[in-house]
Amino acid sequence: MTGATARRRGRPPRAESADTRDRILTAAREEFSERGYEKTSVRGIAKSAGVDSALVHHYFGTKEQIFEAAIEVAFAPALDAPNAVADGPLDGVGERLTRFVFGVWENPTTRAPLLAILRSAVNNETAAAVFRRLVASQLLRRIAAQVDLPDAELRAELAAAQIVGTAMMRYVIKLEPLASADLEQIITRVAPVVQRHLTAP
Amino acid sequence: MTGATARRRGRPPRAESADTRDRILTAAREEFSERGYEKTSVRGIAKSAGVDSALVHHYFGTKEQIFEAAIEVAFAPALDAPNAVADGPLDGVGERLTRFVFGVWENPTTRAPLLAILRSAVNNETAAAVFRRLVASQLLRRIAAQVDLPDAELRAELAAAQIVGTAMMRYVIKLEPLASADLEQIITRVAPVVQRHLTAP
Repeated sequence: MTGATARRRGRPPRAESADTRDRILTAAREEFSERGYEKTSVRGIAKSAGVDSALVHHYFGTKEQIFEAAIEVAFAPALDAPNAVADGPLDGVGERLTRFVFGVWENPTTRAPLLAILRSAVNNETAAAVFRRLVASQLLRRIAAQVDLPDAELRAELAAAQIVGTAMMRYVIKLEPLASADLEQIITRVAPVVQRHLTAP
Repeated sequence: MTGATARRRGRPPRAESADTRDRILTAAREEFSERGYEKTSVRGIAKSAGVDSALVHHYFGTKEQIFEAAIEVAFAPALDAPNAVADGPLDGVGERLTRFVFGVWENPTTRAPLLAILRSAVNNETAAAVFRRLVASQLLRRIAAQVDLPDAELRAELAAAQIVGTAMMRYVIKLEPLASADLEQIITRVAPVVQRHLTAP
């Protein structure tokens, strides 16, 4: 949505504009992934994309808005989760959600940007706000809506806490035996807990 | 243990030595808390403690060893958990562990160093290794030993994942409604899950 707003501000030739935007966005994702939110500068993104800083601001706005746009792209597979999780009966929602999120983490291509987002969110209040906005409103609220219980949002957050906590211990802190455990073994233990958080009376 | 090893290397007058060590350790805790592992330097710690860098190395060794010593002090209340958790029947272990850890997080004095440790561990491989060593060997293994089941260590790690994930969402990312929820409501939901991870068949 940030991109759409910013795009309205100027009118460069269309094809060139889309190319430049994509190039800036790719550069932004790489810079944020490598350096984290705090150490990334708009100037560094511009340099890596081979454009002027003013053009980066022109397309995306502030550093926070660039970060949000970059996260939205990186999060795209995870943001499909509510759809993937919605198909099927409610008593399998815990396993579907767990499988989906660990699938994203197990894939090295999608793990790197997720890790960068997590690191940035833990270290910086602005990045945490972006994470909160995207994860809370786009992911958890949509799952909560399917649960249809009065405290569904808190339930969805506690379910997410089990998944995020397990991912952190396994992929970031690398605690053993969790880090080397078979994924199916983890899903067997985590999915019922997620299910319980979401739907137990 | 790091401190004890380093102490053996030289023989400054005893009282002065203990004072200086404490001053350096306090400075180190503050520097690591404020800046995180990566941005903290031995020189900065020395300056803040009013001593020479060489003296910091003399007492504690490398930056990693200073970090470990600082964490051990900050973690001291959490490292009492196995004892606190051990008192009482096994079917209340989930609630006792959950109450203990959230008690540490709810206290602003102990929350700051915990947050600094978490941030450092998420961002830096060396800090993650220290976290792993302390949390895994000193805390989780001791809890696992009380559980006395074949996969007790994995169980303890998944229980810890629920608690750490919830703490992260509540105190770091500040997801709502979790961040403002009553602590008792959270304990009511988290404790049975922790219990289940630790002792369910």
